[in-house]
Amino acid sequence: MRTLPSYVCGGWAEGKGDLETLVNPATEEPLARAGAGGLDRKAALEYARLRGGPALRALTLAERGALLQAMGDALLAHRNELLDLSVTSGGNTRSDAKFDVDGATFTLAAYAEIGKGLGDARFLVDGEGIALGRSPRFHGQHVAVPRHGVAVHINAFNFPAWGLLEKSAVALLAGMPVLTKPATASALLAHRMVEIVVEEAGLPAGALSLLVGGVGDLLEHLGPQDVVAFTGSSETGAKIRALGSVIRHSVRVNVEADSLNAAILGPDAAPGSETCDLFMKDVMRDVTQKAGQKCTAIRRVLVPAPLAAHIRDELVDRLRSVVVGNPAEDAVRMGPLATAHQLRDVRAGIGRLAADGRLALGSAEPLAGVGAPPGKGFFVGPCLIEVEGGAAAPTVHSLEVFGPAATLIPWSGVPAEATEVVARGQGGLVSSVYSDDPTFLSEVVLGLAPFHGRVFLGSGKIAEQSPGPGTVLPQLVHGGPGRAGGGEELGGPRGLGFYLQRVALEGSRPVIEKIVGIRSG
Amino acid sequence: MRTLPSYVCGGWAEGKGDLETLVNPATEEPLARAGAGGLDRKAALEYARLRGGPALRALTLAERGALLQAMGDALLAHRNELLDLSVTSGGNTRSDAKFDVDGATFTLAAYAEIGKGLGDARFLVDGEGIALGRSPRFHGQHVAVPRHGVAVHINAFNFPAWGLLEKSAVALLAGMPVLTKPATASALLAHRMVEIVVEEAGLPAGALSLLVGGVGDLLEHLGPQDVVAFTGSSETGAKIRALGSVIRHSVRVNVEADSLNAAILGPDAAPGSETCDLFMKDVMRDVTQKAGQKCTAIRRVLVPAPLAAHIRDELVDRLRSVVVGNPAEDAVRMGPLATAHQLRDVRAGIGRLAADGRLALGSAEPLAGVGAPPGKGFFVGPCLIEVEGGAAAPTVHSLEVFGPAATLIPWSGVPAEATEVVARGQGGLVSSVYSDDPTFLSEVVLGLAPFHGRVFLGSGKIAEQSPGPGTVLPQLVHGGPGRAGGGEELGGPRGLGFYLQRVALEGSRPVIEKIVGIRSG
Repeated sequence: MRTLPSYVCGGWAEGKGDLETLVNPATEEPLARAGAGGLDRKAALEYARLRGGPALRALTLAERGALLQAMGDALLAHRNELLDLSVTSGGNTRSDAKFDVDGATFTLAAYAEIGKGLGDARFLVDGEGIALGRSPRFHGQHVAVPRHGVAVHINAFNFPAWGLLEKSAVALLAGMPVLTKPATASALLAHRMVEIVVEEAGLPAGALSLLVGGVGDLLEHLGPQDVVAFTGSSETGAKIRALGSVIRHSVRVNVEADSLNAAILGPDAAPGSETCDLFMKDVMRDVTQKAGQKCTAIRRVLVPAPLAAHIRDELVDRLRSVVVGNPAEDAVRMGPLATAHQLRDVRAGIGRLAADGRLALGSAEPLAGVGAPPGKGFFVGPCLIEVEGGAAAPTVHSLEVFGPAATLIPWSGVPAEATEVVARGQGGLVSSVYSDDPTFLSEVVLGLAPFHGRVFLGSGKIAEQSPGPGTVLPQLVHGGPGRAGGGEELGGPRGLGFYLQRVALEGSRPVIEKIVGIRSG
Repeated sequence: MRTLPSYVCGGWAEGKGDLETLVNPATEEPLARAGAGGLDRKAALEYARLRGGPALRALTLAERGALLQAMGDALLAHRNELLDLSVTSGGNTRSDAKFDVDGATFTLAAYAEIGKGLGDARFLVDGEGIALGRSPRFHGQHVAVPRHGVAVHINAFNFPAWGLLEKSAVALLAGMPVLTKPATASALLAHRMVEIVVEEAGLPAGALSLLVGGVGDLLEHLGPQDVVAFTGSSETGAKIRALGSVIRHSVRVNVEADSLNAAILGPDAAPGSETCDLFMKDVMRDVTQKAGQKCTAIRRVLVPAPLAAHIRDELVDRLRSVVVGNPAEDAVRMGPLATAHQLRDVRAGIGRLAADGRLALGSAEPLAGVGAPPGKGFFVGPCLIEVEGGAAAPTVHSLEVFGPAATLIPWSGVPAEATEVVARGQGGLVSSVYSDDPTFLSEVVLGLAPFHGRVFLGSGKIAEQSPGPGTVLPQLVHGGPGRAGGGEELGGPRGLGFYLQRVALEGSRPVIEKIVGIRSG
């Protein structure tokens, strides 16, 4: 069986010592081994800093954008192979696989386009020039220049393709070399994508490194110009933030962590309306897509109390018909969880959520997956936990169960009460509100805003175009305060800021304008 | 003797238990006592969150700006009293006192003006609307709304006036209530300023709280919507970052810490030129102003090797003539350090710097201050430490001595070598380069940029208007990467971002535009 090598210091290198076995989550068939024991992580960082950094900074933003385009083109040429690998290695249905793989190339293309628009500059001009003195000669101008370190990316298991490339696209465009570490369990896809990019996209040496296996002592070697972007659990995010190297050198850390995303149905969106239909469709998608393993998935469903029983029955009906099993089978609509560990966590979590209310559908018991070998695969069925209106439900508002489970919370219909309930989640990535009542929407949207990175306004009027709140778009920021980690990624050109140092130039206007103008030479 | 009360939960409250005695640093005469034992810090935060927050958020940005104006007007009416208090309680010359007190009211006025310009909005629109779908109906718009927590400000001893108000101005304009904690040693001035503001500026209840004394358990009660802005030592900054509450709730922390700011003399700026004169003046100012107790002060002076002896002799001559003593005396040009603790640290630091080279002027020995009682006052004389060209000088590039000391480093005249030497400081607030050679300037300025929050371009052409690199202007960002703490304050409207949550609104264009438009109603 193959051992996945890492790509560090300009070459492929296999780890030594203990190796982890990667399996197909639907069949538990072993696929590959992975481990990074004995790899010199300090040298890998130094190679990226000293080779990749200068090479990227020497390129214009348009040239860096062209590299992203070349990466996207290379990956697109292998799309079917990548989708197949996503199905077998990630427990994804073909639709789930497209969501990850096509989302990755879409994001690359979006940042390639931003790079093109930024043209011949090598750094960004930030805002207008500022007259600082009595005469216009004494002048200030902010610019944002690439940091001279490495962008270390630590990704979650659920989106090996998108996680790899949404982060890399932004860092590379900004001019920082990337060392990316996928979650080991789903590293096969990320590994193959890096292999394709290395072979076919013509990146400068040191621009992109890959560590397959444990993080080891990697983060101990971070310096003051490095940055870390992490997606995963709050616990791991907290450990990274508390590292001596990170604190000592003020290393920038971006964390995307847990989030109890809410969907609120407005009292005006009666069952049968297009807006209510969109709400049902979005909830259904988020419970089942990738078996609920999406950081943006709807976890809490707030419904006006008089509608709660109706919505519950409707959701239970629809969820009950979802075929769960081996995504290699055509009839299967929802695959397994990604790992045995995830299955254990999700089952325990469903039990804890149910203690706050009652299970209207599903259970924490294991499930036999359609088309999976008997007793094999990490399957759990869709679950809906119904809470009583006004209940404290402390677990519902604090525990993210990373699987196909949502809670249903009846609420009064008063806007401020909905936002108060949602805010108990202590900060999230995205919440959504489904209504066509502008007054209601205004109150709820502005009430939710301080607690989120994104607020989605669901309406029949956008139903045909909307990918739903669970889809992260490269044009909009992704991240959220508090429990969600306090981070911010993407958002078009906004995302570049994390990888740039903003600096004020202060002095004589003609000289500063000449220096800033040099960027376009 | 008076005990300084804190202003919390809408009233003045004296601390119990151990009290610290505040003294005149030139005479060691006791002035007041301070301590916050027994004060309920959790309740103070909660009062600010629940009373101050909603009151500020209900105001428009123009109305918040008008509050800043009222604060500035009130303080200006007490200017002479405040300057006198700064001299007696802070060891400041009258010129130093103006730098702190007038800098504070100038910054208030600048943010009052920004508020006026932002008009009737209650939150900020961030960038243009974005077409997300095939039709323009599916739309995205970023906004930035006030966070619902408290802005906790922990300030350094050196600028009790400016530190209090530069931070408060930005937070209050953004719509967040402030709980400010001055350094106890110089709290008399900050206390008096808050007293004046509370009595005369008409702030809403809970908008501004003051804690005089130890931080105690204050930071343990931080939540996910709170932010902390800290100015002081790297050690304390690191402790704040590592706090469980901060990490658990992704509390935003801004740190301004140590910085080994450099001044580079260009090979073209011959002695006698206006640009070289400005360089000499700026170095002189930064060594002596506030006895070197400025986080932006020039610590490392890089001079082309052939000029090093000349510049050294000139600086030694000028520094030797500086009269050090009790700033109440007219002849005195430089006061004492702020505390006995600072004196001990600075003396030890001078000894350590001297081990990297040799003392061209001054010593670590105590000094009798002119006009101070015999044996009293925390005086040290100006020091210049000369390093050999090409020496590793590890302490010179890593130890910030927070007093009237600078190091003189001869260098080759090659731009890349100057930026390499400066970068050994691992990130700073501001460095400056004095030259009129555009090619040299461009290379050095862009080389320094990634390692700084501000780069100052010194030239005879701006000499009449320039306040020098050591002066922080509200229009330009203040902060720096790495050793400098990785923070960013001020920068005009940029500073507001720290106190706001950026959130993407995603949905139907007319509805989003209506909601965003409501801000101007």
